[in-house]
Amino acid sequence: MVSTDLATIAAHLEGLEETIIHRLIDRAQFRRNRSVYTPSNSGFPDAGERSLFELRLRYQEEMDARFGRYQVPEECPYHQDLPEPERLAPLTESPLSRDAADAVNRTPEIVSAYLKFVPELCEQGDDGQYGSAVEHDVLAVQAIGRRIHYGALYVAESKYRASPDAFRDVASDPDPSARNDALLRLISRPEVEEQILGRVRDKVEYVQATVNLTVRRRVEPDLVIRLYRETVIPITKEGEIDYLLVRAAEGIHG
Amino acid sequence: MVSTDLATIAAHLEGLEETIIHRLIDRAQFRRNRSVYTPSNSGFPDAGERSLFELRLRYQEEMDARFGRYQVPEECPYHQDLPEPERLAPLTESPLSRDAADAVNRTPEIVSAYLKFVPELCEQGDDGQYGSAVEHDVLAVQAIGRRIHYGALYVAESKYRASPDAFRDVASDPDPSARNDALLRLISRPEVEEQILGRVRDKVEYVQATVNLTVRRRVEPDLVIRLYRETVIPITKEGEIDYLLVRAAEGIHG
Repeated sequence: MVSTDLATIAAHLEGLEETIIHRLIDRAQFRRNRSVYTPSNSGFPDAGERSLFELRLRYQEEMDARFGRYQVPEECPYHQDLPEPERLAPLTESPLSRDAADAVNRTPEIVSAYLKFVPELCEQGDDGQYGSAVEHDVLAVQAIGRRIHYGALYVAESKYRASPDAFRDVASDPDPSARNDALLRLISRPEVEEQILGRVRDKVEYVQATVNLTVRRRVEPDLVIRLYRETVIPITKEGEIDYLLVRAAEGIHG
Repeated sequence: MVSTDLATIAAHLEGLEETIIHRLIDRAQFRRNRSVYTPSNSGFPDAGERSLFELRLRYQEEMDARFGRYQVPEECPYHQDLPEPERLAPLTESPLSRDAADAVNRTPEIVSAYLKFVPELCEQGDDGQYGSAVEHDVLAVQAIGRRIHYGALYVAESKYRASPDAFRDVASDPDPSARNDALLRLISRPEVEEQILGRVRDKVEYVQATVNLTVRRRVEPDLVIRLYRETVIPITKEGEIDYLLVRAAEGIHG
Protein backbone atom coordinates (compact mmCIF):
# COMPACT_ATOMS: atom_id res chain seq x y z
CA MET A 1 0.00 0.00 0.00
CA VAL A 2 1.29 3.43 -0.97
CA SER A 3 1.89 5.56 2.09
CA THR A 4 -0.26 8.48 3.21
CA ASP A 5 2.45 9.63 5.60
CA LEU A 6 3.07 13.28 4.74
CA ALA A 7 6.85 13.05 5.15
CA THR A 8 7.04 10.13 2.72
CA ILE A 9 4.84 11.92 0.20
CA ALA A 10 6.93 15.08 0.50
CA ALA A 11 10.09 13.06 -0.08
CA HIS A 12 8.57 11.54 -3.22
CA LEU A 13 7.66 15.02 -4.45
CA GLU A 14 11.29 15.99 -3.96
CA GLY A 15 12.34 13.18 -6.27
CA LEU A 16 9.90 14.30 -8.95
CA GLU A 17 11.39 17.79 -8.65
CA GLU A 18 14.70 16.53 -9.94
CA THR A 19 13.14 15.02 -13.03
CA ILE A 20 11.39 18.32 -13.77
CA ILE A 21 14.63 20.27 -13.41
CA HIS A 22 16.58 17.89 -15.66
CA ARG A 23 13.95 18.03 -18.36
CA LEU A 24 13.64 21.81 -18.31
CA ILE A 25 17.41 22.06 -18.69
CA ASP A 26 17.28 19.63 -21.61
CA ARG A 27 14.58 21.67 -23.35
CA ALA A 28 16.51 24.89 -22.77
CA GLN A 29 19.34 23.58 -24.94
CA PHE A 30 17.15 24.30 -27.98
CA ARG A 31 15.79 27.61 -29.20
CA ARG A 32 12.22 28.63 -28.70
CA ASN A 33 11.28 27.40 -32.19
CA ARG A 34 7.95 29.12 -32.23
CA SER A 35 6.68 27.38 -35.34
CA VAL A 36 6.34 24.04 -33.53
CA TYR A 37 3.43 25.56 -31.58
CA THR A 38 1.68 27.01 -34.65
CA PRO A 39 -1.56 25.24 -35.56
CA SER A 40 -1.80 23.46 -38.94
CA ASN A 41 1.97 23.63 -39.28
CA SER A 42 3.18 20.19 -38.19
CA GLY A 43 4.20 19.10 -41.67
CA PHE A 44 2.42 15.79 -41.05
CA PRO A 45 0.04 15.19 -43.96
CA ASP A 46 -3.04 14.12 -41.94
CA ALA A 47 -2.55 16.14 -38.77
CA GLY A 48 -5.27 18.71 -39.42
CA GLU A 49 -4.97 21.77 -37.23
CA ARG A 50 -2.62 20.25 -34.70
CA SER A 51 0.74 21.88 -34.13
CA LEU A 52 3.88 19.72 -34.09
CA PHE A 53 3.88 19.96 -30.29
CA GLU A 54 0.26 18.83 -30.02
CA LEU A 55 0.95 15.98 -32.37
CA ARG A 56 3.95 14.79 -30.38
CA LEU A 57 1.91 14.94 -27.18
CA ARG A 58 -0.83 12.89 -28.87
CA TYR A 59 1.59 10.22 -30.16
CA GLN A 60 3.39 10.04 -26.81
CA GLU A 61 0.15 9.61 -24.87
CA GLU A 62 -1.12 6.95 -27.28
CA MET A 63 2.07 4.95 -26.80
CA ASP A 64 2.08 5.46 -23.05
CA ALA A 65 -1.59 4.49 -22.79
CA ARG A 66 -0.82 1.16 -24.49
CA PHE A 67 1.98 0.60 -21.97
CA GLY A 68 -0.35 1.29 -19.05
CA ARG A 69 0.84 4.69 -17.84
CA TYR A 70 -2.66 5.96 -17.13
CA GLN A 71 -3.57 3.05 -14.90
CA VAL A 72 -1.97 4.84 -11.95
CA PRO A 73 -4.06 7.69 -10.54
CA GLU A 74 -1.27 10.30 -10.52
CA GLU A 75 -0.86 10.07 -14.30
CA CYS A 76 -3.49 12.15 -16.08
CA PRO A 77 -3.43 12.36 -19.85
CA TYR A 78 -4.28 15.40 -21.91
CA HIS A 79 -6.39 13.35 -24.31
CA GLN A 80 -9.46 11.42 -23.23
CA ASP A 81 -9.84 9.11 -26.24
CA LEU A 82 -6.65 7.12 -25.86
CA PRO A 83 -6.18 3.42 -26.66
CA GLU A 84 -6.77 0.85 -23.95
CA PRO A 85 -3.72 -0.56 -22.16
CA GLU A 86 -2.41 -3.68 -23.88
CA ARG A 87 -1.32 -5.14 -20.58
CA LEU A 88 -2.82 -4.91 -17.15
CA ALA A 89 -0.65 -3.48 -14.43
CA PRO A 90 -0.68 -5.50 -11.22
CA LEU A 91 -3.34 -3.93 -9.01
CA THR A 92 -1.78 -2.35 -5.98
CA GLU A 93 -3.95 -1.41 -3.06
CA SER A 94 -4.47 2.35 -3.11
CA PRO A 95 -5.05 4.61 -0.12
CA LEU A 96 -6.90 7.08 -2.37
CA SER A 97 -10.59 7.42 -2.97
CA ARG A 98 -11.11 6.28 -6.55
CA ASP A 99 -13.92 8.71 -7.25
CA ALA A 100 -12.07 11.63 -5.72
CA ALA A 101 -8.94 10.80 -7.76
CA ASP A 102 -11.05 10.60 -10.93
CA ALA A 103 -12.29 14.14 -10.25
CA VAL A 104 -8.77 15.56 -10.67
CA ASN A 105 -7.35 16.28 -14.10
CA ARG A 106 -5.41 19.49 -14.35
CA THR A 107 -3.41 18.52 -17.45
CA PRO A 108 -4.97 21.04 -19.86
CA GLU A 109 -4.02 23.89 -17.51
CA ILE A 110 -0.55 22.45 -17.02
CA VAL A 111 0.07 22.27 -20.77
CA SER A 112 -1.17 25.80 -21.24
CA ALA A 113 0.97 27.18 -18.38
CA TYR A 114 4.01 25.31 -19.72
CA LEU A 115 3.57 26.73 -23.21
CA LYS A 116 3.50 30.24 -21.76
CA PHE A 117 6.73 29.39 -19.92
CA VAL A 118 8.70 28.16 -22.96
CA PRO A 119 9.55 31.65 -24.29
CA GLU A 120 11.17 32.44 -20.93
CA LEU A 121 12.96 29.11 -20.67
CA CYS A 122 14.45 29.07 -24.16
CA GLU A 123 16.55 31.47 -26.10
CA GLN A 124 14.57 33.34 -28.73
CA GLY A 125 14.76 32.26 -32.31
CA ASP A 126 14.82 29.15 -34.39
CA ASP A 127 17.49 26.44 -34.65
CA GLY A 128 15.56 24.05 -36.87
CA GLN A 129 15.64 21.36 -34.16
CA TYR A 130 11.89 20.97 -34.14
CA GLY A 131 11.75 17.25 -33.39
CA SER A 132 14.07 17.63 -30.38
CA ALA A 133 12.21 20.70 -29.11
CA VAL A 134 8.83 18.98 -28.99
CA GLU A 135 10.31 15.72 -27.69
CA HIS A 136 11.67 17.58 -24.67
CA ASP A 137 8.54 19.69 -24.31
CA VAL A 138 6.44 16.57 -23.94
CA LEU A 139 8.86 14.98 -21.47
CA ALA A 140 8.84 18.19 -19.41
CA VAL A 141 5.04 18.47 -19.44
CA GLN A 142 4.74 14.86 -18.32
CA ALA A 143 7.15 15.37 -15.43
CA ILE A 144 5.35 18.53 -14.28
CA GLY A 145 1.97 16.82 -14.61
CA ARG A 146 3.09 13.83 -12.57
CA ARG A 147 4.41 16.10 -9.80
CA ILE A 148 1.22 18.16 -9.65
CA HIS A 149 -1.20 15.23 -9.72
CA TYR A 150 0.81 13.14 -7.30
CA GLY A 151 0.86 16.09 -4.91
CA ALA A 152 -2.82 16.88 -5.38
CA LEU A 153 -4.00 13.33 -4.69
CA TYR A 154 -1.69 12.08 -1.97
CA VAL A 155 -1.22 15.32 -0.05
CA ALA A 156 -4.98 15.91 -0.07
CA GLU A 157 -5.72 12.37 1.11
CA SER A 158 -3.13 12.68 3.85
CA LYS A 159 -4.47 16.02 5.05
CA TYR A 160 -8.03 14.73 4.95
CA ARG A 161 -7.12 11.76 7.14
CA ALA A 162 -5.45 14.04 9.65
CA SER A 163 -8.65 16.04 10.23
CA PRO A 164 -11.67 14.61 8.40
CA ASP A 165 -14.18 16.58 10.47
CA ALA A 166 -12.69 19.92 9.57
CA PHE A 167 -12.78 19.09 5.85
CA ARG A 168 -16.33 17.74 5.97
CA ASP A 169 -17.42 20.84 7.78
CA VAL A 170 -15.89 23.25 5.29
CA ALA A 171 -16.89 21.24 2.22
CA SER A 172 -20.55 21.30 3.17
CA ASP A 173 -20.72 25.09 2.85
CA PRO A 174 -23.36 25.72 0.15
CA ASP A 175 -21.56 28.82 -1.18
CA PRO A 176 -18.96 27.44 -3.63
CA SER A 177 -16.72 30.47 -3.50
CA ALA A 178 -16.62 30.68 0.32
CA ARG A 179 -16.18 26.90 0.45
CA ASN A 180 -13.19 26.90 -1.89
CA ASP A 181 -11.57 29.81 -0.07
CA ALA A 182 -11.93 27.99 3.23
CA LEU A 183 -10.52 24.78 1.73
CA LEU A 184 -7.59 26.73 0.32
CA ARG A 185 -6.85 28.13 3.77
CA LEU A 186 -7.08 24.67 5.32
CA ILE A 187 -4.60 23.11 2.88
CA SER A 188 -2.10 25.98 2.53
CA ARG A 189 1.17 25.71 4.39
CA PRO A 190 3.24 28.77 3.41
CA GLU A 191 6.31 27.60 5.33
CA VAL A 192 6.38 24.34 3.36
CA GLU A 193 6.03 26.27 0.11
CA GLU A 194 9.00 28.47 1.02
CA GLN A 195 11.00 25.35 1.84
CA ILE A 196 10.21 23.85 -1.56
CA LEU A 197 11.23 27.03 -3.36
CA GLY A 198 14.52 27.18 -1.48
CA ARG A 199 15.28 23.57 -2.28
CA VAL A 200 14.45 24.05 -5.96
CA ARG A 201 16.88 26.98 -6.08
CA ASP A 202 19.67 24.87 -4.57
CA LYS A 203 19.02 22.01 -6.93
CA VAL A 204 18.99 24.11 -10.08
CA GLU A 205 22.30 25.64 -8.92
CA TYR A 206 23.94 22.32 -8.04
CA VAL A 207 22.79 20.37 -11.05
CA GLN A 208 24.38 22.97 -13.32
CA ALA A 209 27.46 23.68 -11.21
CA THR A 210 29.82 21.86 -13.56
CA VAL A 211 28.18 22.85 -16.83
CA ASN A 212 30.36 23.96 -19.71
CA LEU A 213 28.86 27.25 -20.76
CA THR A 214 30.48 27.15 -24.20
CA VAL A 215 27.71 24.86 -25.41
CA ARG A 216 25.14 24.47 -22.67
CA ARG A 217 22.57 27.08 -21.87
CA ARG A 218 22.27 27.62 -18.14
CA VAL A 219 18.76 27.84 -16.71
CA GLU A 220 18.42 30.55 -14.07
CA PRO A 221 17.14 29.21 -10.72
CA ASP A 222 14.71 32.16 -10.51
CA LEU A 223 12.97 30.95 -13.62
CA VAL A 224 12.27 27.49 -12.21
CA ILE A 225 11.22 29.05 -8.93
CA ARG A 226 8.72 31.19 -10.80
CA LEU A 227 7.33 28.08 -12.52
CA TYR A 228 6.92 26.49 -9.09
CA ARG A 229 5.41 29.59 -7.52
CA GLU A 230 3.00 30.45 -10.34
CA THR A 231 2.15 27.05 -11.77
CA VAL A 232 3.23 23.95 -9.85
CA ILE A 233 2.17 25.00 -6.36
CA PRO A 234 -1.15 26.74 -7.20
CA ILE A 235 -2.32 24.06 -9.63
CA THR A 236 -1.44 21.37 -7.09
CA LYS A 237 -3.66 23.17 -4.58
CA GLU A 238 -6.51 23.42 -7.08
CA GLY A 239 -6.17 19.69 -7.64
CA GLU A 240 -6.25 19.12 -3.88
CA ILE A 241 -9.51 21.05 -3.70
CA ASP A 242 -11.00 18.98 -6.57
CA TYR A 243 -10.06 15.86 -4.65
CA LEU A 244 -11.22 17.04 -1.25
CA LEU A 245 -14.67 18.10 -2.41
CA VAL A 246 -15.44 14.55 -3.53
CA ARG A 247 -13.58 12.96 -0.64
CA ALA A 248 -15.41 15.01 2.00
CA ALA A 249 -18.79 14.35 0.38
CA GLU A 250 -18.06 10.62 0.55
CA GLY A 251 -17.22 11.12 4.19
CA ILE A 252 -20.61 12.70 4.78
CA HIS A 253 -22.82 10.46 2.66
CA GLY A 254 -20.80 7.27 2.40
CA MET B 1 27.41 24.17 -40.95
CA VAL B 2 28.10 22.02 -37.90
CA SER B 3 31.61 22.57 -36.64
CA THR B 4 34.50 20.15 -37.02
CA ASP B 5 36.51 22.05 -34.44
CA LEU B 6 37.55 19.49 -31.86
CA ALA B 7 36.98 21.79 -28.87
CA THR B 8 33.42 22.54 -29.98
CA ILE B 9 32.71 18.85 -30.54
CA ALA B 10 34.14 17.97 -27.13
CA ALA B 11 31.95 20.62 -25.51
CA HIS B 12 28.88 19.17 -27.22
CA LEU B 13 29.83 15.70 -25.95
CA GLU B 14 29.99 17.17 -22.45
CA GLY B 15 26.41 18.35 -22.82
CA LEU B 16 25.25 14.90 -23.92
CA GLU B 17 26.99 13.49 -20.82
CA GLU B 18 24.57 15.35 -18.58
CA THR B 19 21.55 13.89 -20.30
CA ILE B 20 23.00 10.39 -19.90
CA ILE B 21 23.63 10.94 -16.19
CA HIS B 22 20.12 12.31 -15.57
CA ARG B 23 18.50 9.40 -17.36
CA LEU B 24 20.54 6.75 -15.57
CA ILE B 25 19.57 8.31 -12.25
CA ASP B 26 15.91 8.30 -13.30
CA ARG B 27 16.07 4.60 -14.25
CA ALA B 28 17.81 3.76 -10.96
CA GLN B 29 14.73 4.90 -9.03
CA PHE B 30 13.04 1.65 -10.11
CA ARG B 31 14.00 -1.91 -9.30
CA ARG B 32 15.69 -4.15 -11.79
CA ASN B 33 12.33 -5.70 -12.82
CA ARG B 34 13.90 -8.57 -14.66
CA SER B 35 10.69 -9.75 -16.26
CA VAL B 36 10.55 -6.71 -18.56
CA TYR B 37 13.55 -8.17 -20.41
CA THR B 38 12.12 -11.69 -20.71
CA PRO B 39 11.12 -12.66 -24.26
CA SER B 40 7.45 -13.43 -24.99
CA ASN B 41 6.48 -11.79 -21.73
CA SER B 42 5.34 -8.28 -22.70
CA GLY B 43 1.66 -8.92 -22.00
CA PHE B 44 0.86 -7.28 -25.36
CA PRO B 45 -1.37 -9.67 -27.32
CA ASP B 46 0.43 -9.44 -30.69
CA ALA B 47 3.99 -8.83 -29.59
CA GLY B 48 5.34 -12.28 -30.38
CA GLU B 49 8.68 -12.99 -28.75
CA ARG B 50 9.49 -9.40 -27.93
CA SER B 51 10.11 -8.46 -24.33
CA LEU B 52 8.37 -5.41 -22.89
CA PHE B 53 11.66 -3.50 -23.22
CA GLU B 54 12.06 -4.47 -26.88
CA LEU B 55 8.49 -3.48 -27.56
CA ARG B 56 8.91 -0.07 -25.95
CA LEU B 57 12.08 0.52 -27.97
CA ARG B 58 10.19 -0.43 -31.13
CA TYR B 59 7.24 1.89 -30.40
CA GLN B 60 9.54 4.75 -29.42
CA GLU B 61 11.63 4.41 -32.59
CA GLU B 62 8.52 4.24 -34.78
CA MET B 63 7.22 7.46 -33.25
CA ASP B 64 10.62 9.15 -33.44
CA ALA B 65 11.10 8.07 -37.05
CA ARG B 66 7.81 9.77 -38.01
CA PHE B 67 9.02 12.94 -36.28
CA GLY B 68 12.30 12.87 -38.22
CA ARG B 69 14.80 11.85 -35.53
CA TYR B 70 16.78 9.60 -37.84
CA GLN B 71 17.32 12.27 -40.46
CA VAL B 72 20.35 13.50 -38.53
CA PRO B 73 23.43 11.31 -38.91
CA GLU B 74 24.21 10.99 -35.17
CA GLU B 75 20.85 9.31 -34.49
CA CYS B 76 21.01 5.62 -35.33
CA PRO B 77 17.96 3.48 -34.71
CA TYR B 78 18.00 -0.11 -33.52
CA HIS B 79 15.38 -1.13 -36.09
CA GLN B 80 15.95 -0.82 -39.81
CA ASP B 81 12.34 -1.12 -41.00
CA LEU B 82 10.96 2.07 -39.48
CA PRO B 83 8.29 4.34 -40.98
CA GLU B 84 9.35 7.22 -43.20
CA PRO B 85 9.47 10.70 -41.65
CA GLU B 86 6.16 12.51 -42.02
CA ARG B 87 7.90 15.83 -42.32
CA LEU B 88 11.20 16.77 -43.87
CA ALA B 89 13.76 18.38 -41.63
CA PRO B 90 15.37 21.47 -43.13
CA LEU B 91 18.57 20.27 -44.78
CA THR B 92 21.59 21.63 -42.99
CA GLU B 93 24.95 21.47 -44.64
CA SER B 94 26.94 18.66 -43.04
CA PRO B 95 30.71 18.49 -42.70
CA LEU B 96 30.51 14.68 -42.62
CA SER B 97 30.96 12.23 -45.44
CA ARG B 98 27.51 10.80 -46.02
CA ASP B 99 28.75 7.35 -46.98
CA ALA B 100 31.13 7.18 -44.04
CA ALA B 101 28.36 8.23 -41.64
CA ASP B 102 26.07 5.57 -43.10
CA ALA B 103 28.71 2.95 -42.32
CA VAL B 104 28.36 3.56 -38.56
CA ASN B 105 25.58 1.97 -36.56
CA ARG B 106 26.63 0.69 -33.18
CA THR B 107 23.13 0.68 -31.66
CA PRO B 108 22.73 -3.10 -31.29
CA GLU B 109 25.97 -3.26 -29.25
CA ILE B 110 24.91 -0.24 -27.20
CA VAL B 111 21.57 -1.84 -26.31
CA SER B 112 23.25 -5.09 -25.39
CA ALA B 113 25.88 -3.37 -23.21
CA TYR B 114 23.18 -1.29 -21.53
CA LEU B 115 21.10 -4.35 -20.69
CA LYS B 116 24.14 -5.93 -19.04
CA PHE B 117 24.56 -2.73 -17.05
CA VAL B 118 20.97 -2.52 -15.69
CA PRO B 119 21.47 -5.13 -12.93
CA GLU B 120 24.33 -3.02 -11.55
CA LEU B 121 22.47 0.26 -11.90
CA CYS B 122 19.23 -0.84 -10.25
CA GLU B 123 18.41 -2.42 -6.97
CA GLN B 124 17.60 -6.11 -7.27
CA GLY B 125 14.01 -7.21 -7.26
CA ASP B 126 10.67 -6.23 -8.64
CA ASP B 127 8.52 -3.20 -7.84
CA GLY B 128 5.84 -3.79 -10.47
CA GLN B 129 6.70 -0.48 -12.18
CA TYR B 130 7.30 -2.13 -15.53
CA GLY B 131 6.04 0.67 -17.74
CA SER B 132 8.25 3.23 -15.98
CA ALA B 133 11.28 0.92 -16.02
CA VAL B 134 11.21 0.39 -19.79
CA GLU B 135 10.31 4.02 -20.47
CA HIS B 136 13.50 5.12 -18.71
CA ASP B 137 15.53 2.30 -20.23
CA VAL B 138 14.67 3.50 -23.71
CA LEU B 139 15.40 7.14 -22.86
CA ALA B 140 18.77 6.10 -21.40
CA VAL B 141 19.69 3.95 -24.41
CA GLN B 142 18.82 6.81 -26.75
CA ALA B 143 20.98 9.27 -24.81
CA ILE B 144 23.94 6.87 -24.76
CA GLY B 145 23.49 6.10 -28.45
CA ARG B 146 23.42 9.76 -29.39
CA ARG B 147 26.62 10.43 -27.40
CA ILE B 148 28.45 7.51 -28.98
CA HIS B 149 27.39 8.19 -32.55
CA TYR B 150 27.92 11.91 -32.31
CA GLY B 151 31.41 11.26 -30.97
CA ALA B 152 32.20 8.60 -33.55
CA LEU B 153 31.19 10.73 -36.54
CA TYR B 154 32.33 14.22 -35.62
CA VAL B 155 35.49 13.35 -33.73
CA ALA B 156 36.57 11.01 -36.55
CA GLU B 157 35.89 13.63 -39.22
CA SER B 158 37.77 16.23 -37.22
CA LYS B 159 40.78 13.96 -36.68
CA TYR B 160 40.76 12.95 -40.33
CA ARG B 161 40.87 16.58 -41.45
CA ALA B 162 43.79 17.27 -39.15
CA SER B 163 45.97 14.62 -40.82
CA PRO B 164 44.33 13.03 -43.86
CA ASP B 165 47.58 11.55 -45.14
CA ALA B 166 48.23 9.58 -41.97
CA PHE B 167 44.74 8.08 -42.04
CA ARG B 168 44.86 7.25 -45.75
CA ASP B 169 48.19 5.60 -45.23
CA VAL B 170 47.06 3.42 -42.32
CA ALA B 171 43.65 2.60 -43.85
CA SER B 172 45.24 1.19 -46.99
CA ASP B 173 46.98 -1.62 -45.05
CA PRO B 174 45.58 -4.84 -46.59
CA ASP B 175 45.73 -6.72 -43.24
CA PRO B 176 42.41 -5.77 -41.52
CA SER B 177 43.63 -6.58 -38.04
CA ALA B 178 46.90 -4.62 -38.31
CA ARG B 179 44.99 -1.80 -40.00
CA ASN B 180 42.41 -1.51 -37.22
CA ASP B 181 45.10 -1.64 -34.54
CA ALA B 182 46.97 1.16 -36.23
CA LEU B 183 43.78 3.23 -36.60
CA LEU B 184 42.99 2.67 -32.94
CA ARG B 185 46.44 3.97 -31.99
CA LEU B 186 45.99 7.00 -34.22
CA ILE B 187 42.65 8.00 -32.70
CA SER B 188 43.31 7.18 -29.04
CA ARG B 189 44.05 10.04 -26.68
CA PRO B 190 44.37 8.52 -23.20
CA GLU B 191 44.75 11.92 -21.51
CA VAL B 192 41.40 13.06 -22.96
CA GLU B 193 39.77 9.84 -21.80
CA GLU B 194 41.02 10.39 -18.25
CA GLN B 195 39.70 13.92 -18.37
CA ILE B 196 36.25 12.69 -19.42
CA LEU B 197 36.17 10.11 -16.62
CA GLY B 198 37.13 12.71 -14.03
CA ARG B 199 34.45 15.06 -15.26
CA VAL B 200 31.81 12.34 -15.22
CA ARG B 201 32.71 11.57 -11.62
CA ASP B 202 32.31 15.22 -10.61
CA LYS B 203 28.99 15.53 -12.41
CA VAL B 204 27.46 12.41 -10.89
CA GLU B 205 28.52 13.70 -7.46
CA TYR B 206 27.21 17.22 -7.99
CA VAL B 207 23.94 16.31 -9.62
CA GLN B 208 23.07 14.17 -6.62
CA ALA B 209 24.54 16.41 -3.94
CA THR B 210 21.17 17.57 -2.64
CA VAL B 211 19.30 14.30 -3.07
CA ASN B 212 16.98 13.13 -0.31
CA LEU B 213 18.12 9.59 0.35
CA THR B 214 14.86 8.60 2.05
CA VAL B 215 13.25 8.09 -1.33
CA ARG B 216 15.87 8.53 -4.02
CA ARG B 217 18.40 5.90 -4.87
CA ARG B 218 21.86 7.39 -5.28
CA VAL B 219 23.90 6.21 -8.24
CA GLU B 220 27.56 5.65 -7.41
CA PRO B 221 29.92 7.70 -9.60
CA ASP B 222 32.13 4.61 -10.08
CA LEU B 223 29.28 2.84 -11.79
CA VAL B 224 28.82 5.55 -14.41
CA ILE B 225 32.58 5.74 -14.86
CA ARG B 226 32.63 2.02 -15.56
CA LEU B 227 29.90 2.46 -18.18
CA TYR B 228 32.01 5.17 -19.80
CA ARG B 229 35.24 3.17 -19.59
CA GLU B 230 33.83 -0.15 -20.78
CA THR B 231 31.06 0.92 -23.14
CA VAL B 232 30.84 4.57 -24.14
CA ILE B 233 34.51 5.21 -24.89
CA PRO B 234 35.40 1.90 -26.62
CA ILE B 235 32.24 1.78 -28.74
CA THR B 236 32.80 5.40 -29.77
CA LYS B 237 36.26 4.40 -30.96
CA GLU B 238 34.91 1.41 -32.89
CA GLY B 239 32.45 3.79 -34.53
CA GLU B 240 35.30 6.16 -35.38
CA ILE B 241 37.13 3.30 -37.09
CA ASP B 242 33.99 2.37 -39.08
CA TYR B 243 33.79 5.96 -40.23
CA LEU B 244 37.46 6.42 -40.99
CA LEU B 245 37.75 3.32 -43.13
CA VAL B 246 35.15 4.68 -45.54
CA ARG B 247 36.36 8.27 -45.23
CA ALA B 248 39.97 7.39 -45.96
CA ALA B 249 39.01 5.21 -48.93
CA GLU B 250 37.08 8.15 -50.36
CA GLY B 251 40.20 10.26 -49.83
CA ILE B 252 42.24 7.77 -51.87
CA HIS B 253 39.77 6.98 -54.67
CA GLY B 254 37.44 10.01 -54.64
